[in-house]
Amino acid sequence: MSDVLEQLAAVVDARRGASPDSSYVASLFNGGLDRILKKLGEEATETIIAGKDGERGQVIYETADLWFHSIVLLKFLDIEPGEVLNELERRFGRSGIEEKAARTGGKR
Amino acid sequence: MSDVLEQLAAVVDARRGASPDSSYVASLFNGGLDRILKKLGEEATETIIAGKDGERGQVIYETADLWFHSIVLLKFLDIEPGEVLNELERRFGRSGIEEKAARTGGKR
Amino acid sequence: MSDVLEQLAAVVDARRGASPDSSYVASLFNGGLDRILKKLGEEATETIIAGKDGERGQVIYETADLWFHSIVLLKFLDIEPGEVLNELERRFGRSGIEEKAARTGGKR
Amino acid sequence: MSDVLEQLAAVVDARRGASPDSSYVASLFNGGLDRILKKLGEEATETIIAGKDGERGQVIYETADLWFHSIVLLKFLDIEPGEVLNELERRFGRSGIEEKAARTGGKR
Repeated sequence: MSDVLEQLAAVVDARRGASPDSSYVASLFNGGLDRILKKLGEEATETIIAGKDGERGQVIYETADLWFHSIVLLKFLDIEPGEVLNELERRFGRSGIEEKAARTGGKR
Repeated sequence: MSDVLEQLAAVVDARRGASPDSSYVASLFNGGLDRILKKLGEEATETIIAGKDGERGQVIYETADLWFHSIVLLKFLDIEPGEVLNELERRFGRSGIEEKAARTGGKR
Repeated sequence: MSDVLEQLAAVVDARRGASPDSSYVASLFNGGLDRILKKLGEEATETIIAGKDGERGQVIYETADLWFHSIVLLKFLDIEPGEVLNELERRFGRSGIEEKAARTGGKR
Repeated sequence: MSDVLEQLAAVVDARRGASPDSSYVASLFNGGLDRILKKLGEEATETIIAGKDGERGQVIYETADLWFHSIVLLKFLDIEPGEVLNELERRFGRSGIEEKAARTGGKR
């Protein structure tokens, strides 16, 4: 199921070089890092607002937007979503290690 | 690689009822919706800052934090990550439909 | 000098009932609370990005946007900017009380 | 009422070099730009959440936090709040120029 994120990364790769007029992905890459980061901030805000409203469908929709723009950011920096999933697995994986300890070990 | 997000949701489910002192997930659920949304906003900000620095490792780390707290929000609202992945697949899936059209059809 | 914020609130009041086509303030009020909050999130993101770049002119510009949309939010909720300034004066005012103590007394 | 923001900037100046243990302002400066920007993002998120709740007192409180941390950012970059107020006056000042035109002339 998380293969969807890898498929999505492949879609982003396929479209990043297209015409910005015909492809939303290409328009994001064309706008550069700041454009992508602004969209990430916008989608986080919209997810928070949807969360406050507690409407399931809207939260699903906005979280999809947030994850999609996360993947655009990753690909802009030549990162695969699998690297993020590996990091999550490292923290929370089958070992059953308590996640708080895992976090403390990471930073801060 | 795949199914990491579903596994993570299962971890969240297993820990949400634990003691807030021993589990970070439980402390988030105990704090309620606003606590979870504040963390989401924090992690989005930290991802943006890491993105500006362009350090791959830090972007991976912060995106993992962002996705993790997204999943906590989803589970708090009884949503499975698969519902978000389905929404992404609907928009970008094997049909090859241009994503911009998919977005326009969705909202706004 | 901070009278500028009161003047700005008066401008917002004068325009909130105008045609959304002719007035940006009216278009924000017309969009409702969520539209205003989304703009606030966007402007915070843009201020953070400008801050990372460290360009004075851009930080001034984006902070102006952030404060302006803050005032639109205040007025949407029938709050005067002076009420925020009073809160700041209470915390940091002529008494010389250390601000950290003032904050701790406030919340959390 | 007026000049609260300038007074606040003076307080920030007076405390920025203090011990980070005794002064919250000093701890922010000591943490550097990223620490200040993270706080700005947090306070924006908390203002958005308070706005959704529509509780006047909480919105006043969080907006005060947001403006305070804005001023810390400004002073970290050697900007006076008056420069932001001048920018706002330039856009919305006594001339009565419609603000949307002013914005359009500014950027983008």
